[in-house]
Amino acid sequence: MKISTETEYFNEPLYLESGRILPSYNLVYETYGELNSDKSNAIVVCHALTGSHHAAGRYKDEVKSGWWDSLIGNDKAIDTKKYFVICVNILASPFGSTCPLDIDKTTGKEYRTKFPVVVISDVVNAQIKLFKRLGIKEAYAVIGGSLGGMQALCFAIEHPRFSKRVIMLASTYATRPWAIAFNKIAIEGIVNDPEFNGGYYDRYKIASEGLKGMAIGRMAGHISFLSPDSTLKKFGREYVETDGLYELKGRFQIDRYMEYNGHNFSKRFDPLCYLYIVKMMNIFDCTRHFDSLEDALSLIKSRLTLISFKGDMLFMPSEMEEIYKAMVKTDRKNMVEYFEIDSNYGHDAFLVETDKFDFYIKKALEWKK
Amino acid sequence: MKISTETEYFNEPLYLESGRILPSYNLVYETYGELNSDKSNAIVVCHALTGSHHAAGRYKDEVKSGWWDSLIGNDKAIDTKKYFVICVNILASPFGSTCPLDIDKTTGKEYRTKFPVVVISDVVNAQIKLFKRLGIKEAYAVIGGSLGGMQALCFAIEHPRFSKRVIMLASTYATRPWAIAFNKIAIEGIVNDPEFNGGYYDRYKIASEGLKGMAIGRMAGHISFLSPDSTLKKFGREYVETDGLYELKGRFQIDRYMEYNGHNFSKRFDPLCYLYIVKMMNIFDCTRHFDSLEDALSLIKSRLTLISFKGDMLFMPSEMEEIYKAMVKTDRKNMVEYFEIDSNYGHDAFLVETDKFDFYIKKALEWKK
Repeated sequence: MKISTETEYFNEPLYLESGRILPSYNLVYETYGELNSDKSNAIVVCHALTGSHHAAGRYKDEVKSGWWDSLIGNDKAIDTKKYFVICVNILASPFGSTCPLDIDKTTGKEYRTKFPVVVISDVVNAQIKLFKRLGIKEAYAVIGGSLGGMQALCFAIEHPRFSKRVIMLASTYATRPWAIAFNKIAIEGIVNDPEFNGGYYDRYKIASEGLKGMAIGRMAGHISFLSPDSTLKKFGREYVETDGLYELKGRFQIDRYMEYNGHNFSKRFDPLCYLYIVKMMNIFDCTRHFDSLEDALSLIKSRLTLISFKGDMLFMPSEMEEIYKAMVKTDRKNMVEYFEIDSNYGHDAFLVETDKFDFYIKKALEWKK
Repeated sequence: MKISTETEYFNEPLYLESGRILPSYNLVYETYGELNSDKSNAIVVCHALTGSHHAAGRYKDEVKSGWWDSLIGNDKAIDTKKYFVICVNILASPFGSTCPLDIDKTTGKEYRTKFPVVVISDVVNAQIKLFKRLGIKEAYAVIGGSLGGMQALCFAIEHPRFSKRVIMLASTYATRPWAIAFNKIAIEGIVNDPEFNGGYYDRYKIASEGLKGMAIGRMAGHISFLSPDSTLKKFGREYVETDGLYELKGRFQIDRYMEYNGHNFSKRFDPLCYLYIVKMMNIFDCTRHFDSLEDALSLIKSRLTLISFKGDMLFMPSEMEEIYKAMVKTDRKNMVEYFEIDSNYGHDAFLVETDKFDFYIKKALEWKK
């Protein structure tokens, strides 16, 4: 499988939904496989909140492969022998595309909190501009989970002719207060950490030491990625061997899991970028310019495949099912498929239990109009 | 209804499960109604994590009544014309019973982090000692929700002759990792707040300004007290009127609810006491000295009434149902009743929707052997 990482610079303004403008911007992206001669075999993969464009393959010295390596590759469900797969790092993410840590050309200083709020539609518009430059007028498919699923749905509604096949996993059509509440913990953790300094922190120090407030926020995130059942199966009431049960600081294994993941994460992700992307997730509502969900979905011309996971506590199966029902209600039963995957991994399932749904993705990709 | 608040001083050691000893201790408690001549009409009410002995009635200048005022009073489900109701503030709580802020007689200094870890069994043992002093050898009933439900179950298992009727609401027989995970956010929020200073903070400053880290932890707690459905019904995607949708700091109504409750709470509850009580909740497991839940429950001689709430995300109905099933399995179907209340309030329901279950409590209290 051929992998390459590229950066494209756009020396032109991006008009944002908020009314604000990014005067210029970068998009970094990764591709797998080869674009065919008529440029008709591109599959757009959209990444989640803390993901990146590194969706598959493994670079030298890398411990872990890309986040969907089990799905993307030669002879895998998203077969790089047949398809040219492209994953673009979203705006506001700290992994290379334009983000709050970059220099604002108009002031010569880092944007920091002056960076404009970017929404899913903006992120998708920017990607479309990139694809145009690459000569890709139409994608073979668009696919994404969680925040990536919001992007996939946005492609389907706002760029209805862009892709005949859209696959959305573990996501929602409008972020609900339950998910917003989990994000609130992260927001409060970050902004109340004195080291954050209102967004004007020492980024190199934070990158090496982490931000405790963000670690705490991420721990709350991990609760929402798991589920009552998955935590019971995975951790039970196991106690850390070296801790005393009657010590105030004694920990259960679930405590240690949260500590480990929270503190690790706070070293690999920028806190201000996190605030911007959480904002993007919170305000996502694909019905916002419409009277109803049905109205919004009535624009869709793609065949929509919806995959949810039993026990997903962040974006519940019922939220995905509502999309299915609204599609059926508007007489497009033949244009939508809905699968609820039995899983004990909660929201995390779309990343870790790919063997439970890769077949559905393969089939959705084989669909012909 | 006659209310009185009393403090009882025990100039004798309390031997704790951990092997440590409290050389002396105070218990503060409230009573409602009057103890009858043969002292057979006492109902013990057990409070939750952040509750207090002030379960009912309203004092002059008080804005809110006691936390179960809708259940306890003249002609209410727990009728103070018939019963003498007593609610004891648990050890480690900051409202008057011995806690980490008190002076350790052996050193002449405040305990702070030297305070011993206190478990549900210890809390219950201390209450039994108080009841003995008051001449109450047997209670008419014991009742409690959440952490109070753990106490009620502990009374039933470890003091099987103490009460013929035990009522447990919105609780569990062993705290599960899902609940422990929510508590972890509070623990991390508190211990990582620089103002906490390893437990040796300025308590008067914290009491007037609050501790931000605890506020964040409490916000996470509020997620677990609510539910996906209840947040959707209560807040939807309503945005704060004065905030801009595209402002990074703009908030949804759910954000404001969490801020308000989190920060208010952090001024009225002591953070070190919170750590101790969270610990008490986390390590609660009534099966710990037994081979199985059935074995633990086989000691029970009380009639057990179990009330759970649909959508309780902290202690799920299934956890309460397991207790019911284990009672039935050990041939005591006539000694147990289980009700799952249909509610949209999640865990909070045991405090706010008392009209949905007061009838079951009344009936459980009327049960005669």
